[in-house]
Amino acid sequence: MTVVEASSGTAVRRGPGRPRDADLDAQILAGALALIDEGATVTVSLLVAQSGVSRAAIYRRWPSLTALVAAALDVGRTVPPDIPLTGDLRDAVSGSLFGGQRVSVVGYSEERFRQRIRLAMADRDLQQAYWDSHVSRRRASLERALQAGVERGILRKGLDPATCFDLLAGVVYYQLVVRGDTLSDPVVWKRCQDAFDIAWRGMVAETG
Amino acid sequence: MTVVEASSGTAVRRGPGRPRDADLDAQILAGALALIDEGATVTVSLLVAQSGVSRAAIYRRWPSLTALVAAALDVGRTVPPDIPLTGDLRDAVSGSLFGGQRVSVVGYSEERFRQRIRLAMADRDLQQAYWDSHVSRRRASLERALQAGVERGILRKGLDPATCFDLLAGVVYYQLVVRGDTLSDPVVWKRCQDAFDIAWRGMVAETG
Repeated sequence: MTVVEASSGTAVRRGPGRPRDADLDAQILAGALALIDEGATVTVSLLVAQSGVSRAAIYRRWPSLTALVAAALDVGRTVPPDIPLTGDLRDAVSGSLFGGQRVSVVGYSEERFRQRIRLAMADRDLQQAYWDSHVSRRRASLERALQAGVERGILRKGLDPATCFDLLAGVVYYQLVVRGDTLSDPVVWKRCQDAFDIAWRGMVAETG
Repeated sequence: MTVVEASSGTAVRRGPGRPRDADLDAQILAGALALIDEGATVTVSLLVAQSGVSRAAIYRRWPSLTALVAAALDVGRTVPPDIPLTGDLRDAVSGSLFGGQRVSVVGYSEERFRQRIRLAMADRDLQQAYWDSHVSRRRASLERALQAGVERGILRKGLDPATCFDLLAGVVYYQLVVRGDTLSDPVVWKRCQDAFDIAWRGMVAETG
Protein backbone atom coordinates (compact mmCIF):
# COMPACT_ATOMS: atom_id res chain seq x y z
CA MET A 1 0.00 0.00 0.00
CA THR A 2 1.59 3.26 -1.10
CA VAL A 3 0.70 6.52 0.52
CA VAL A 4 -0.02 8.85 -2.37
CA GLU A 5 -1.22 11.70 -0.22
CA ALA A 6 1.38 14.24 0.87
CA SER A 7 0.59 16.18 4.00
CA SER A 8 0.34 19.28 1.86
CA GLY A 9 -2.84 17.82 0.44
CA THR A 10 -1.57 17.33 -3.10
CA ALA A 11 -3.27 13.99 -3.54
CA VAL A 12 -3.33 12.59 -7.02
CA ARG A 13 -6.60 10.96 -8.01
CA ARG A 14 -5.64 7.53 -9.23
CA GLY A 15 -7.25 5.96 -12.22
CA PRO A 16 -9.79 3.22 -11.74
CA GLY A 17 -7.26 0.53 -12.63
CA ARG A 18 -4.92 1.36 -9.76
CA PRO A 19 -5.41 0.55 -6.09
CA ARG A 20 -6.76 3.39 -3.94
CA ASP A 21 -5.07 4.41 -0.83
CA ALA A 22 -7.11 2.35 1.53
CA ASP A 23 -4.97 3.28 4.53
CA LEU A 24 -5.74 6.93 4.17
CA ASP A 25 -9.43 6.21 3.57
CA ALA A 26 -9.49 4.19 6.76
CA GLN A 27 -7.71 6.94 8.67
CA ILE A 28 -10.28 9.52 7.59
CA LEU A 29 -13.22 7.22 8.33
CA ALA A 30 -11.82 6.35 11.74
CA GLY A 31 -11.51 10.07 12.49
CA ALA A 32 -15.12 10.66 11.48
CA LEU A 33 -16.27 7.71 13.55
CA ALA A 34 -14.41 8.96 16.60
CA LEU A 35 -16.23 12.27 16.25
CA ILE A 36 -19.57 10.50 15.80
CA ASP A 37 -18.94 8.33 18.85
CA GLU A 38 -18.30 11.49 20.87
CA GLY A 39 -21.66 12.84 19.71
CA ALA A 40 -19.92 15.67 17.86
CA THR A 41 -21.13 17.10 14.58
CA VAL A 42 -18.67 16.02 11.91
CA THR A 43 -17.18 18.96 10.02
CA VAL A 44 -14.23 18.97 7.66
CA SER A 45 -12.27 21.19 10.06
CA LEU A 46 -12.83 18.86 13.00
CA LEU A 47 -11.96 15.93 10.80
CA VAL A 48 -8.68 17.51 9.71
CA ALA A 49 -7.81 18.09 13.35
CA GLN A 50 -8.91 14.62 14.35
CA SER A 51 -7.37 12.52 11.60
CA GLY A 52 -4.35 14.59 10.64
CA VAL A 53 -5.33 14.26 7.00
CA SER A 54 -5.52 17.29 4.76
CA ARG A 55 -8.72 19.01 3.78
CA ALA A 56 -7.94 18.43 0.11
CA ALA A 57 -7.52 14.70 0.67
CA ILE A 58 -10.95 14.53 2.27
CA TYR A 59 -12.62 16.49 -0.53
CA ARG A 60 -10.97 14.33 -3.17
CA ARG A 61 -12.15 11.11 -1.67
CA TRP A 62 -15.81 11.77 -0.98
CA PRO A 63 -18.30 13.73 -3.02
CA SER A 64 -19.77 15.24 0.15
CA LEU A 65 -19.44 15.24 3.90
CA THR A 66 -22.75 13.40 3.97
CA ALA A 67 -21.33 10.57 1.89
CA LEU A 68 -18.29 10.45 4.15
CA VAL A 69 -20.38 10.25 7.32
CA ALA A 70 -22.52 7.54 5.73
CA ALA A 71 -19.38 5.57 4.91
CA ALA A 72 -18.03 6.07 8.43
CA LEU A 73 -21.27 4.76 9.91
CA ASP A 74 -20.78 1.63 7.87
CA VAL A 75 -17.23 0.89 9.02
CA GLY A 76 -17.01 -2.63 10.41
CA ARG A 77 -20.24 -3.73 8.83
CA THR A 78 -20.12 -6.28 6.08
CA VAL A 79 -22.48 -7.28 3.34
CA PRO A 80 -23.92 -10.65 4.38
CA PRO A 81 -22.81 -13.54 2.19
CA ASP A 82 -25.25 -15.11 -0.20
CA ILE A 83 -27.82 -17.25 1.54
CA PRO A 84 -27.88 -20.81 0.18
CA LEU A 85 -31.00 -21.16 -1.93
CA THR A 86 -31.30 -24.86 -1.19
CA GLY A 87 -31.71 -26.43 2.22
CA ASP A 88 -33.99 -25.22 4.99
CA LEU A 89 -35.02 -21.71 4.04
CA ARG A 90 -36.38 -20.76 7.43
CA ASP A 91 -33.15 -21.67 9.18
CA ALA A 92 -31.15 -19.84 6.55
CA VAL A 93 -33.23 -16.64 6.81
CA SER A 94 -33.35 -16.75 10.59
CA GLY A 95 -29.61 -17.41 10.68
CA SER A 96 -28.97 -14.48 8.41
CA LEU A 97 -31.03 -12.14 10.57
CA PHE A 98 -30.19 -13.39 14.02
CA GLY A 99 -27.25 -15.73 13.72
CA GLY A 100 -23.54 -15.23 13.74
CA GLN A 101 -22.92 -11.83 15.21
CA ARG A 102 -26.27 -12.16 17.03
CA VAL A 103 -27.00 -8.57 16.14
CA SER A 104 -26.65 -8.78 12.41
CA VAL A 105 -29.77 -6.69 11.83
CA VAL A 106 -28.07 -3.93 13.71
CA GLY A 107 -24.55 -4.84 12.71
CA TYR A 108 -22.47 -3.07 15.30
CA SER A 109 -22.55 -1.85 18.87
CA GLU A 110 -25.88 -0.55 20.03
CA GLU A 111 -24.30 2.76 21.02
CA ARG A 112 -23.09 3.29 17.47
CA PHE A 113 -26.48 2.17 16.21
CA ARG A 114 -28.09 4.88 18.32
CA GLN A 115 -25.72 7.47 16.91
CA ARG A 116 -26.51 6.33 13.40
CA ILE A 117 -30.26 6.67 13.94
CA ARG A 118 -29.82 10.01 15.68
CA LEU A 119 -27.84 11.39 12.76
CA ALA A 120 -30.27 9.97 10.22
CA MET A 121 -33.22 11.56 12.01
CA ALA A 122 -31.48 14.92 12.00
CA ASP A 123 -30.45 14.75 8.34
CA ARG A 124 -32.63 13.28 5.62
CA ASP A 125 -29.83 13.48 3.05
CA LEU A 126 -27.58 11.39 5.25
CA GLN A 127 -30.39 8.92 5.83
CA GLN A 128 -30.94 8.59 2.10
CA ALA A 129 -27.20 8.26 1.38
CA TYR A 130 -26.85 5.60 4.04
CA TRP A 131 -29.85 3.71 2.73
CA ASP A 132 -28.70 3.84 -0.89
CA SER A 133 -25.07 2.98 -0.38
CA HIS A 134 -25.25 0.66 2.60
CA VAL A 135 -28.54 -0.65 3.97
CA SER A 136 -30.10 -1.57 0.65
CA ARG A 137 -26.96 -3.49 -0.36
CA ARG A 138 -27.02 -5.47 2.83
CA ARG A 139 -30.63 -6.48 2.31
CA ALA A 140 -29.97 -8.02 -1.09
CA SER A 141 -28.92 -11.54 -0.13
CA LEU A 142 -31.87 -12.05 2.18
CA GLU A 143 -34.33 -10.64 -0.34
CA ARG A 144 -32.95 -12.99 -3.00
CA ALA A 145 -33.38 -15.94 -0.65
CA LEU A 146 -36.99 -14.93 0.06
CA GLN A 147 -37.67 -14.54 -3.66
CA ALA A 148 -36.23 -18.01 -4.25
CA GLY A 149 -38.53 -19.26 -1.48
CA VAL A 150 -41.52 -17.90 -3.37
CA GLU A 151 -40.29 -19.54 -6.57
CA ARG A 152 -39.75 -22.85 -4.80
CA GLY A 153 -43.30 -22.71 -3.45
CA ILE A 154 -42.16 -22.52 0.17
CA LEU A 155 -43.43 -18.98 0.58
CA ARG A 156 -46.73 -17.67 -0.66
CA LYS A 157 -47.06 -16.61 -4.25
CA GLY A 158 -46.98 -12.88 -4.77
CA LEU A 159 -45.11 -12.06 -1.57
CA ASP A 160 -42.86 -9.05 -1.90
CA PRO A 161 -39.42 -9.89 -0.46
CA ALA A 162 -38.76 -6.27 0.48
CA THR A 163 -42.00 -6.06 2.47
CA CYS A 164 -41.11 -9.29 4.25
CA PHE A 165 -37.67 -7.95 5.06
CA ASP A 166 -39.14 -4.75 6.51
CA LEU A 167 -41.49 -6.79 8.68
CA LEU A 168 -38.74 -9.09 9.97
CA ALA A 169 -36.26 -6.30 10.62
CA GLY A 170 -38.80 -3.74 11.82
CA VAL A 171 -39.56 -5.58 15.02
CA VAL A 172 -35.86 -5.59 15.93
CA TYR A 173 -35.57 -1.86 15.27
CA TYR A 174 -38.66 -1.32 17.40
CA GLN A 175 -36.88 -2.87 20.41
CA LEU A 176 -33.96 -0.48 20.11
CA VAL A 177 -35.61 2.66 18.80
CA VAL A 178 -38.92 2.70 20.64
CA ARG A 179 -38.56 0.46 23.68
CA GLY A 180 -34.96 1.42 24.26
CA ASP A 181 -34.22 -2.22 25.01
CA THR A 182 -31.04 -4.05 24.29
CA LEU A 183 -30.76 -7.24 22.27
CA SER A 184 -28.48 -8.73 24.88
CA ASP A 185 -31.52 -8.97 27.17
CA PRO A 186 -32.84 -12.55 26.78
CA VAL A 187 -36.46 -11.34 27.10
CA VAL A 188 -35.96 -8.95 24.20
CA TRP A 189 -34.14 -11.56 22.18
CA LYS A 190 -36.99 -14.04 22.69
CA ARG A 191 -39.51 -11.36 21.70
CA CYS A 192 -37.69 -10.87 18.40
CA GLN A 193 -37.56 -14.62 17.80
CA ASP A 194 -41.25 -15.01 18.61
CA ALA A 195 -42.10 -12.15 16.26
CA PHE A 196 -40.03 -13.84 13.57
CA ASP A 197 -42.06 -17.01 14.07
CA ILE A 198 -45.32 -15.11 13.67
CA ALA A 199 -44.15 -13.33 10.55
CA TRP A 200 -42.72 -16.49 9.05
CA ARG A 201 -46.01 -18.30 9.60
CA GLY A 202 -47.68 -15.49 7.69
CA MET A 203 -45.25 -15.88 4.84
CA VAL A 204 -45.31 -19.63 4.23
CA ALA A 205 -47.48 -21.15 1.55
CA GLU A 206 -50.50 -23.16 2.55
CA THR A 207 -49.63 -26.82 2.65
CA GLY A 208 -51.73 -29.76 1.54
CA MET B 1 -59.53 28.09 34.46
CA THR B 2 -57.82 30.21 37.07
CA VAL B 3 -54.25 31.26 36.64
CA VAL B 4 -52.60 30.43 39.93
CA GLU B 5 -49.11 31.26 38.79
CA ALA B 6 -47.92 34.84 39.29
CA SER B 7 -45.17 36.00 37.00
CA SER B 8 -42.90 36.17 40.01
CA GLY B 9 -43.01 32.40 40.06
CA THR B 10 -44.87 31.98 43.33
CA ALA B 11 -46.96 29.08 42.16
CA VAL B 12 -48.92 27.22 44.76
CA ARG B 13 -48.99 23.47 44.35
CA ARG B 14 -52.62 22.56 44.39
CA GLY B 15 -53.89 19.50 46.12
CA PRO B 16 -54.91 16.48 44.12
CA GLY B 17 -58.59 17.33 44.42
CA ARG B 18 -58.30 20.69 42.73
CA PRO B 19 -57.85 21.39 39.05
CA ARG B 20 -54.29 22.07 37.93
CA ASP B 21 -53.44 25.09 35.96
CA ALA B 22 -53.70 23.48 32.57
CA ASP B 23 -53.16 26.75 30.77
CA LEU B 24 -49.77 27.27 32.28
CA ASP B 25 -48.84 23.63 31.74
CA ALA B 26 -49.79 24.03 28.09
CA GLN B 27 -47.77 27.21 27.80
CA ILE B 28 -44.65 25.53 29.14
CA LEU B 29 -45.12 22.46 26.96
CA ALA B 30 -45.70 24.62 23.89
CA GLY B 31 -42.48 26.46 24.66
CA ALA B 32 -40.57 23.20 24.96
CA LEU B 33 -42.09 21.92 21.75
CA ALA B 34 -41.14 25.09 19.88
CA LEU B 35 -37.54 24.54 21.00
CA ILE B 36 -37.67 20.88 19.97
CA ASP B 37 -39.11 21.79 16.58
CA GLU B 38 -36.19 24.19 16.08
CA GLY B 39 -33.79 21.35 16.85
CA ALA B 40 -32.58 23.18 19.95
CA THR B 41 -31.59 21.43 23.15
CA VAL B 42 -34.26 22.19 25.72
CA THR B 43 -32.86 23.82 28.85
CA VAL B 44 -34.75 25.51 31.66
CA SER B 45 -33.15 28.85 30.77
CA LEU B 46 -34.21 28.62 27.13
CA LEU B 47 -37.64 27.54 28.23
CA VAL B 48 -38.03 30.51 30.55
CA ALA B 49 -37.07 32.80 27.69
CA GLN B 50 -39.31 30.99 25.23
CA SER B 51 -42.45 30.57 27.30
CA GLY B 52 -42.29 33.56 29.62
CA VAL B 53 -42.98 31.26 32.53
CA SER B 54 -40.83 31.36 35.62
CA ARG B 55 -38.14 28.86 36.41
CA ALA B 56 -39.87 27.98 39.69
CA ALA B 57 -43.12 27.24 37.91
CA ILE B 58 -41.33 24.80 35.64
CA TYR B 59 -39.56 23.03 38.49
CA ARG B 60 -42.80 22.73 40.44
CA ARG B 61 -44.66 21.10 37.62
CA TRP B 62 -42.25 18.43 36.42
CA PRO B 63 -39.92 16.22 38.40
CA SER B 64 -37.21 16.64 35.77
CA LEU B 65 -36.47 18.30 32.47
CA THR B 66 -36.53 14.82 30.95
CA ALA B 67 -40.11 14.30 32.11
CA LEU B 68 -41.05 17.70 30.74
CA VAL B 69 -39.52 16.98 27.33
CA ALA B 70 -41.25 13.60 27.26
CA ALA B 71 -44.56 15.32 28.01
CA ALA B 72 -43.91 17.95 25.33
CA LEU B 73 -43.22 15.24 22.76
CA ASP B 74 -46.61 13.82 23.58
CA VAL B 75 -48.59 17.02 23.07
CA GLY B 76 -51.37 16.49 20.58
CA ARG B 77 -51.24 12.74 20.86
CA THR B 78 -54.13 10.95 22.44
CA VAL B 79 -54.58 7.55 23.99
CA PRO B 80 -56.57 5.51 21.47
CA PRO B 81 -60.09 4.68 22.64
CA ASP B 82 -60.91 1.14 23.64
CA ILE B 83 -61.18 -1.17 20.68
CA PRO B 84 -64.53 -2.98 20.61
CA LEU B 85 -63.92 -6.55 21.64
CA THR B 86 -66.78 -7.85 19.57
CA GLY B 87 -67.16 -7.51 15.82
CA ASP B 88 -64.46 -8.02 13.22
CA LEU B 89 -61.18 -8.02 15.13
CA ARG B 90 -58.95 -7.62 12.09
CA ASP B 91 -60.80 -4.50 10.95
CA ALA B 92 -60.72 -3.10 14.46
CA VAL B 93 -56.98 -3.68 14.91
CA SER B 94 -56.14 -2.44 11.44
CA GLY B 95 -58.35 0.59 11.99
CA SER B 96 -56.66 1.33 15.28
CA LEU B 97 -53.21 1.17 13.70
CA PHE B 98 -53.85 2.72 10.34
CA GLY B 99 -57.27 4.32 10.45
CA GLY B 100 -58.47 7.69 11.48
CA GLN B 101 -55.48 9.97 11.52
CA ARG B 102 -53.83 7.63 9.02
CA VAL B 103 -50.62 7.91 10.97
CA SER B 104 -51.83 6.76 14.33
CA VAL B 105 -48.77 4.60 14.87
CA VAL B 106 -46.72 7.74 14.58
CA GLY B 107 -49.33 10.08 16.00
CA TYR B 108 -48.14 13.44 14.79
CA SER B 109 -46.23 15.10 12.00
CA GLU B 110 -43.31 13.12 10.66
CA GLU B 111 -40.96 16.01 11.36
CA ARG B 112 -41.87 15.94 15.02
CA PHE B 113 -41.62 12.17 14.96
CA ARG B 114 -38.05 12.50 13.68
CA GLN B 115 -37.21 14.93 16.46
CA ARG B 116 -38.67 12.57 19.01
CA ILE B 117 -36.56 9.65 17.77
CA ARG B 118 -33.48 11.85 17.52
CA LEU B 119 -33.86 12.96 21.14
CA ALA B 120 -34.60 9.43 22.32
CA MET B 121 -31.47 8.12 20.61
CA ALA B 122 -29.36 10.78 22.28
CA ASP B 123 -30.84 10.26 25.73
CA ARG B 124 -31.76 6.86 27.14
CA ASP B 125 -33.46 8.41 30.17
CA LEU B 126 -35.76 10.42 27.94
CA GLN B 127 -36.48 7.34 25.85
CA GLN B 128 -37.40 5.39 28.97
CA ALA B 129 -39.52 8.22 30.36
CA TYR B 130 -41.35 8.57 27.07
CA TRP B 131 -41.93 4.85 26.86
CA ASP B 132 -43.19 4.54 30.43
CA SER B 133 -45.45 7.54 30.51
CA HIS B 134 -46.68 7.69 26.93
CA VAL B 135 -45.98 4.89 24.44
CA SER B 136 -46.86 2.01 26.74
CA ARG B 137 -50.17 3.67 27.67
CA ARG B 138 -51.08 4.09 24.04
CA ARG B 139 -50.44 0.45 23.30
CA ALA B 140 -52.87 -0.77 25.96
CA SER B 141 -56.15 -0.74 24.04
CA LEU B 142 -54.71 -2.62 21.08
CA GLU B 143 -52.98 -5.16 23.30
CA ARG B 144 -56.26 -5.77 25.15
CA ALA B 145 -58.04 -6.31 21.85
CA LEU B 146 -55.38 -8.81 20.74
CA GLN B 147 -55.62 -10.63 24.06
CA ALA B 148 -59.39 -10.81 23.65
CA GLY B 149 -58.78 -12.21 20.17
CA VAL B 150 -56.71 -15.00 21.67
CA GLU B 151 -59.41 -15.70 24.24
CA ARG B 152 -62.11 -15.75 21.55
CA GLY B 153 -60.06 -18.27 19.56
CA ILE B 154 -59.57 -15.89 16.64
CA LEU B 155 -55.86 -15.59 17.27
CA ARG B 156 -53.53 -18.43 18.10
CA LYS B 157 -53.32 -19.66 21.65
CA GLY B 158 -50.26 -18.47 23.51
CA LEU B 159 -49.63 -15.40 21.36
CA ASP B 160 -48.14 -12.54 23.29
CA PRO B 161 -50.08 -9.34 22.50
CA ALA B 162 -47.02 -7.16 23.13
CA THR B 163 -44.93 -9.14 20.66
CA CYS B 164 -47.70 -8.85 18.07
CA PHE B 165 -47.89 -5.12 18.64
CA ASP B 166 -44.14 -4.74 18.17
CA LEU B 167 -44.33 -6.68 14.92
CA LEU B 168 -47.25 -4.65 13.56
CA ALA B 169 -45.81 -1.29 14.58
CA GLY B 170 -42.18 -2.13 13.84
CA VAL B 171 -42.67 -2.26 10.11
CA VAL B 172 -44.13 1.26 10.16
CA TYR B 173 -41.21 2.56 12.20
CA TYR B 174 -38.84 0.89 9.75
CA GLN B 175 -40.27 2.97 6.90
CA LEU B 176 -39.60 6.21 8.73
CA VAL B 177 -36.46 5.41 10.68
CA VAL B 178 -34.51 3.25 8.26
CA ARG B 179 -35.88 3.89 4.79
CA GLY B 180 -36.56 7.55 5.45
CA ASP B 181 -39.83 7.19 3.60
CA THR B 182 -43.01 9.03 4.31
CA LEU B 183 -46.36 7.40 5.04
CA SER B 184 -48.06 9.79 2.66
CA ASP B 185 -46.36 7.94 -0.19
CA PRO B 186 -48.93 5.41 -1.46
CA VAL B 187 -46.20 2.83 -2.16
CA VAL B 188 -45.04 3.05 1.45
CA TRP B 189 -48.57 2.95 2.73
CA LYS B 190 -49.31 -0.18 0.71
CA ARG B 191 -46.10 -1.79 1.98
CA CYS B 192 -47.28 -1.25 5.56
CA GLN B 193 -50.68 -2.68 4.76
CA ASP B 194 -49.18 -5.71 3.01
CA ALA B 195 -46.89 -6.30 5.98
CA PHE B 196 -49.91 -6.09 8.27
CA ASP B 197 -51.61 -8.77 6.16
CA ILE B 198 -48.59 -11.06 6.46
CA ALA B 199 -48.32 -10.57 10.21
CA TRP B 200 -52.05 -11.01 10.74
CA ARG B 201 -51.99 -14.25 8.80
CA GLY B 202 -49.27 -15.42 11.15
CA MET B 203 -51.38 -14.50 14.15
CA VAL B 204 -54.74 -16.08 13.32
CA ALA B 205 -55.66 -19.48 14.66
CA GLU B 206 -55.81 -22.43 12.31
CA THR B 207 -59.35 -22.91 11.11
CA GLY B 208 -61.18 -26.16 10.63
